Amino acid sequence: MIKIGVIGYGYWGPNLVRNFAETPGLTMAGVADLDQKKLDIVQKRYPGVKTTTQFQDLVEDPSIDAIAVATPVSTHFDLGMAILKAGKHLWLEKPMAETSQQARQLVDEADKRGLVLIVDHTFCYTGAVRKMAEIIKGDGFGDVLYYDSTRINLGLFQRDVSVISDLAVHDFSILEYLLGEQPIAVSAVGTNHFPGTPENLSYLTLFYNSGMIAHVNVNWLAPVKMRQILVGGSKKMITYDDLEPSEKVRIYDKGVSFTDDPQQIYEMRVGYRSGDMWAPRLDGTEALLVEGKHFVECIENGTAPSTNGHLGLRVVELIEAATRSMNERGRSVEVNGKIMYQGRRVA
Amino acid sequence: MIKIGVIGYGYWGPNLVRNFAETPGLTMAGVADLDQKKLDIVQKRYPGVKTTTQFQDLVEDPSIDAIAVATPVSTHFDLGMAILKAGKHLWLEKPMAETSQQARQLVDEADKRGLVLIVDHTFCYTGAVRKMAEIIKGDGFGDVLYYDSTRINLGLFQRDVSVISDLAVHDFSILEYLLGEQPIAVSAVGTNHFPGTPENLSYLTLFYNSGMIAHVNVNWLAPVKMRQILVGGSKKMITYDDLEPSEKVRIYDKGVSFTDDPQQIYEMRVGYRSGDMWAPRLDGTEALLVEGKHFVECIENGTAPSTNGHLGLRVVELIEAATRSMNERGRSVEVNGKIMYQGRRVA
Amino acid sequence: MIKIGVIGYGYWGPNLVRNFAETPGLTMAGVADLDQKKLDIVQKRYPGVKTTTQFQDLVEDPSIDAIAVATPVSTHFDLGMAILKAGKHLWLEKPMAETSQQARQLVDEADKRGLVLIVDHTFCYTGAVRKMAEIIKGDGFGDVLYYDSTRINLGLFQRDVSVISDLAVHDFSILEYLLGEQPIAVSAVGTNHFPGTPENLSYLTLFYNSGMIAHVNVNWLAPVKMRQILVGGSKKMITYDDLEPSEKVRIYDKGVSFTDDPQQIYEMRVGYRSGDMWAPRLDGTEALLVEGKHFVECIENGTAPSTNGHLGLRVVELIEAATRSMNERGRSVEVNGKIMYQGRRVA
Amino acid sequence: MIKIGVIGYGYWGPNLVRNFAETPGLTMAGVADLDQKKLDIVQKRYPGVKTTTQFQDLVEDPSIDAIAVATPVSTHFDLGMAILKAGKHLWLEKPMAETSQQARQLVDEADKRGLVLIVDHTFCYTGAVRKMAEIIKGDGFGDVLYYDSTRINLGLFQRDVSVISDLAVHDFSILEYLLGEQPIAVSAVGTNHFPGTPENLSYLTLFYNSGMIAHVNVNWLAPVKMRQILVGGSKKMITYDDLEPSEKVRIYDKGVSFTDDPQQIYEMRVGYRSGDMWAPRLDGTEALLVEGKHFVECIENGTAPSTNGHLGLRVVELIEAATRSMNERGRSVEVNGKIMYQGRRVA
Repeated sequence: MIKIGVIGYGYWGPNLVRNFAETPGLTMAGVADLDQKKLDIVQKRYPGVKTTTQFQDLVEDPSIDAIAVATPVSTHFDLGMAILKAGKHLWLEKPMAETSQQARQLVDEADKRGLVLIVDHTFCYTGAVRKMAEIIKGDGFGDVLYYDSTRINLGLFQRDVSVISDLAVHDFSILEYLLGEQPIAVSAVGTNHFPGTPENLSYLTLFYNSGMIAHVNVNWLAPVKMRQILVGGSKKMITYDDLEPSEKVRIYDKGVSFTDDPQQIYEMRVGYRSGDMWAPRLDGTEALLVEGKHFVECIENGTAPSTNGHLGLRVVELIEAATRSMNERGRSVEVNGKIMYQGRRVA
Repeated sequence: MIKIGVIGYGYWGPNLVRNFAETPGLTMAGVADLDQKKLDIVQKRYPGVKTTTQFQDLVEDPSIDAIAVATPVSTHFDLGMAILKAGKHLWLEKPMAETSQQARQLVDEADKRGLVLIVDHTFCYTGAVRKMAEIIKGDGFGDVLYYDSTRINLGLFQRDVSVISDLAVHDFSILEYLLGEQPIAVSAVGTNHFPGTPENLSYLTLFYNSGMIAHVNVNWLAPVKMRQILVGGSKKMITYDDLEPSEKVRIYDKGVSFTDDPQQIYEMRVGYRSGDMWAPRLDGTEALLVEGKHFVECIENGTAPSTNGHLGLRVVELIEAATRSMNERGRSVEVNGKIMYQGRRVA
Repeated sequence: MIKIGVIGYGYWGPNLVRNFAETPGLTMAGVADLDQKKLDIVQKRYPGVKTTTQFQDLVEDPSIDAIAVATPVSTHFDLGMAILKAGKHLWLEKPMAETSQQARQLVDEADKRGLVLIVDHTFCYTGAVRKMAEIIKGDGFGDVLYYDSTRINLGLFQRDVSVISDLAVHDFSILEYLLGEQPIAVSAVGTNHFPGTPENLSYLTLFYNSGMIAHVNVNWLAPVKMRQILVGGSKKMITYDDLEPSEKVRIYDKGVSFTDDPQQIYEMRVGYRSGDMWAPRLDGTEALLVEGKHFVECIENGTAPSTNGHLGLRVVELIEAATRSMNERGRSVEVNGKIMYQGRRVA
Repeated sequence: MIKIGVIGYGYWGPNLVRNFAETPGLTMAGVADLDQKKLDIVQKRYPGVKTTTQFQDLVEDPSIDAIAVATPVSTHFDLGMAILKAGKHLWLEKPMAETSQQARQLVDEADKRGLVLIVDHTFCYTGAVRKMAEIIKGDGFGDVLYYDSTRINLGLFQRDVSVISDLAVHDFSILEYLLGEQPIAVSAVGTNHFPGTPENLSYLTLFYNSGMIAHVNVNWLAPVKMRQILVGGSKKMITYDDLEPSEKVRIYDKGVSFTDDPQQIYEMRVGYRSGDMWAPRLDGTEALLVEGKHFVECIENGTAPSTNGHLGLRVVELIEAATRSMNERGRSVEVNGKIMYQGRRVA
C-alpha cells in the first residue's frame, strides 16, 4: 500500500483526494494547505487524514511514499524538487513548471533518483482519448491530416497564467499521446482584453514534418462552453465532443473526391455527409481513477508513466514557443525537438 | 421594371434565377451558359426566358438593364468590364475578382459610368446578420473584443480557388458589414493535403487598431458541418449558429469579473453561464430576395449597395493579404486600408 | 409522357407542381384554383402551364391523364369521384377522405375502373423511412416492441381538421409501411383549448396483436418543433429525428439485461448507453420526386402504389377510431381490420 | 445540530450521505445496510460514521434525531412506522409507500406525533423546477394549458416496481408543486415486454378541472436518454431539458392566432417560432443540499416540508389510479382528491 500526501486543496486538490481515497493500492495519508479553512473541510470529509498548513510536514514524513502537488504553477519547481530530494515519488499538476529549464531539472532529478514523476495531463486517461488513440493507430484511419480543437467558455481570468497554460496545454498533451510525432514549429496569436492580465484568448497552429497541422482555439471570454476536437484522416475522421453526455466520440467513414463536374459539386455541397457514422461505446471510468491506478503500477514496476516528465517537459517547451510566437503576432517559432522516452523504464 | 440577365447556371445561378423571378421590380430576361443541357433545364422551368450559349447575346441586348455574373472567378473581370462598358448595372458573385487590381478597375468603371455594382456577399442580407449588426451597434453591447468564426464541412475540393476565397470570404464581408472598422494586419496559416490543389483548410487572424481580434477557421475536410460565429463584447456576447433551424442568434448577458478567491474560481469554472440568454425573432425572408429588392432600389435611386464594389474590393485585398501570410507560415501581413464609401451616392 | 393536372394551389399544391415539373415521365398540364391570384403566381413561374378557376376544365380535358387533388379534405370525395369517373388516374392528398365510407367508395371506384389511386403519404417515400423499413425487416433487429412518435410545433389552428388528421396521420401511414401489421385497438385523449376549434393536441396509443405498442404525441401548441420517432426492437433500437440536417436515422446496438445486483443497477442508471451507435447514409432525394416517379411506374405497369387507396382507407379508419376514443377520454376502441393489398396489381 | 442516520446504502443512499455530510445543521451519525461490503465503503469514505447491519441500532439510538430511508419501497412502511414510533423525524425516499393506505397511516402517525415527514421528491428542490414555478405563478404566463413530459432511457428492469413508480412519480410531484391543482382523472396505458416483470413503458394522461391536461411518457427501453418537460400557457410556453448543461429552462414568448388565410397558414408552418426566447440563469446548487437545509428548517421551526407526506400520499394515489387505468387499456379512472396541506404547521 502506497501512502500519498496532497499539497494544495484549492480547485483541483479535492478531486485528487477524492479519487486517491478510492484508488486500490493508495492510502490518503495527509493534506497540506496554507488555508486552515480548507483543512477543516478535509477533516470533516476524511476524519482519518492528517492535515497541516506546513507542507514540510508531509515532505519530511518518512511514512509517506508519494506526494501530489496541486498548487499554483509558480510553486511547482520548489515543491517538486523538495519532494524528489526527500526520495518520494512525485505527482505534478499541469503545466509541470514555469520554464522548460525547471521542467528539465525536475525530470533529471527524478531520473537520477529512480523515482516516478507523473504529470497530471488528465485527458490522456479518459476513455474518449484512449479510444481515439486506438482508432488513429489502427488500420483504416489513414494518415492524420489535421487536428482542430476548440476549448472555450466563460472562464475566470487568472492572474498568473495565460489561457494557453490553462487550456491549450490539454491539447499539447493529447497531441503527444495520440500522435507520438512532435511539432517542428508553432504560430500563435493572442490577446489580453484587460490591461495587466495574461492572454485570455489565443489561436495556435502547430506544424509537423509529416504535413499534419494542428490548430487550437482557446478562449476564456466565450458565452458558451465548447470542448470539441476534430481529427481528419485520409480515410476516416473523428469528432470528440466532451460535453456530449453519450456518444462523445464519433467516427465518420468519409473520403475525399476530386471532380470538375458541376452536378457533383452541387450534390456535395448540399449533402452534409457522404458515409456512415459510428459512435463506439467508451469506458466511463473517471480519468483520475485510471491515472491513480497507473501511478501505482509505475511505482510498483519501476516503469515510466504515459504522461511522464519528458512529455510534461515537451508541453512546457510548446508553451514557451507559443508565447514567443504570440509576442510576434503569429511568426512561426521552431520547437527544439527533444525525444520523449514514453514507456521506457526510468529506474 | 428592370430586365435582368444571368450568366452562368451552375451551382449558384439557379438560386439567382429563382429569386430574381420572384423579386418585385425585376423581370428575368435571359440566361447564358456554355452548357446547352443547363439551358434546357432553364427552359423547362421558365418557358418564357431567353437562353443562349453566347453571353454576348445578353450583353448586347439593348432591352436588358442589368446582368448578374455567376461564373468561375477567373472570368469575373472580363465579363464584368464588358457588362459595365455596355452600360448595364452589374451583379457580381463573390469574390468579385481574382486580384485587387482587377477589382479596383471594376469599381472605377462602375463609378465613372454611374452604374450600380453590387457584389453578392449574400450573408449581409440575412435576418441573422442584420439582427447582429443592430445589437452590436446598439446600446448595451459595449466594445467588440473578438469575432470567432468556424465554417467547416466536407466540401468538394475546388481546383481554381482556395478555401479562403470560398468560405473565409463570408467572414470578411460580414466583418466589414458589422464593424465598419477595417483590419490592419492578417496572420494566416493553411495547408493543402493533396498536391496541386489550393489550400483546403486555413486558420486566419485579423488584427484591428481597436484591439479587436477576428479569427476564422475554414476547412473543406471536416466530417461535420459547422457554421458558427461568436462575437464577444465587453458587456454582452453573441452566438450565431446558421444550422440551427430556429434561434440562430443568441445574446448572452455576461460580464467578466476579476478575483483571486479560489472558491469563486471554482464556481466560475463549474458553472456554464452567469447570466440570462435571449434569442430574438429573426426575419426569415430568403437573403437573395432581400438583396434583389435592395439592388432594384439602388438602381432606381442611384445609391450604392450595402455590399458595393468598395466593400468587394476590400474583401479581395484581404484574400491577397491572407494568402501572402499563409505563404510565410503565419507572419502578419499589413492590409493597406482603403476607405470604403458605404452608402454614398454613386451616380 | 403522362400529362398531369393539379387542383388546389394553396399550401401543398406548389410543392406538387414544382416536383411534377421535374419528374421524368410527367408533364405539368394545368392548375386549377378558386383564387385567381394564386393562378397568376403559377403563370409567372410556369408560363406554359394552363390555369383555370374551374376544376372541371381539367377533369374534362381529354389530353390530361391524371389529376392531383390538394384541396381541403372536405372536397376530396367529390373531386376524387369526378376524376375517377372521367377515367383519369388520381393522386389524393392525405387524409384521403373525411370518412372511411367515402374512402372505401373511392377505392372501389378506382379498382373497378383499373385506375391508379395513390394517396400522398409523403413520408413513406423519404430516404429515412425507407432505410428504417430496411433495418426493421432485416436480420438483427428482432421483434418490434414499441414505436413512439412526437410531432409538435407551434402550428396554425385549422378550423376543419384536428391535429390527428394533420399530424398523427403521418404516423398511421409510416406504421403501416414499416410493420405491415395493423393495430387492433386505439386509445386516444385530446383537447381543444379554444372553443369551437378541433383538437389541437392529442396523445394516442395503438395496440397490436403481437404485443407491440405505438404511441403518438401530436401538438399544435408547442414552443419548439420536434419530429422524432423511436422504434424499439428486442435486439436493436432506432431513432429518427427529421430535423437533424444529417444523421437523421441512428441505430443503437443495445440489449436488455436483467439483474438484481445493485452495483450493476448503479452502472446502468448512470451510463447513458451500453453499445455502439451507427448512422447510415440516407438517400437525400426529395420524397415527392421519388413518389412522382413511383406514380408514373404504377400507371405504366398497372401496379398498385405503396401508398395505395387501401392503405389510405386504413389511415382514415384509424382517424375515426381515434376520434371515437378521444370522445370517451381514452377508452380503447377496436379497429376493424380490413386487409390491405399492398403491391397487388389493380388493373 | 441534528444527528441523522441513513438506512440503505444502495443506489441513492450514497448521495444522501454525501449531501447530509455537507449540510449545515446536520451531522451524519450512522448508516445501516444489510450488506457489510457497502458498510466497508462507508467506513473508508467517512471514518467517523457508525455503521451497522441492524437498522434497529439506528432506530433505538437515543442520540439520533432523524432517519432517512433509502431502501426498496416494500420496506418503507415498516421502517417508517418504526422510526416515527421511536419519536424521530423521517426522510422517506419516493414513492413513500406501496399503497395509499400505508401512506395515509404514515402521514397520520407523523401528524399525531408532531414529527416532520419529508418525502424525497428531489426534483422539487432543483433550481430549474423552482424557476418554472416562479414563472408559471407570475404575471404574463396566462392559464396553464398542458404539461408534457418525456422521461426515457435504457434503464435496468426493476423487479419490484413499474416504470410509473420509478419515473412518472417525478412528474406527479412536479405537477403538484407547480400547479397546486390536482387531477380529477387518469388515463394510462403501458406494457411489459418481458413476462413476469412490471411495466417498462407507460403513457399517462392526467385530466384537470380547469381543462389543463398533463401527459407523461416513461420508458426504460429507449436507446437515448431524454428528460424533457413542456408547459404550454395561454401567453407563454416553457421547455425544461434536464440534460442541457446550461439553459435548461427556456421561456418562449409565443401566442396563438386564428386565420383562414392560406398565405398565413403557409408562413406559420414553415416558420419555427414567432417570438423571442429567453433562458434565465438558474441556481445550480445540488437539489439534495437544498432539500437537506429545508429539512433542517422544518425540524427547527416545526413547519411542514414542501414535499410533505400529504403530497407524497397524493403521488401514491396517482400511481394507484394510473395502474388501475393501465389494467383497462386506458379507461379513465377518477382520483379522489384529498386536500394537501402544503406549508401548514404540523407541530
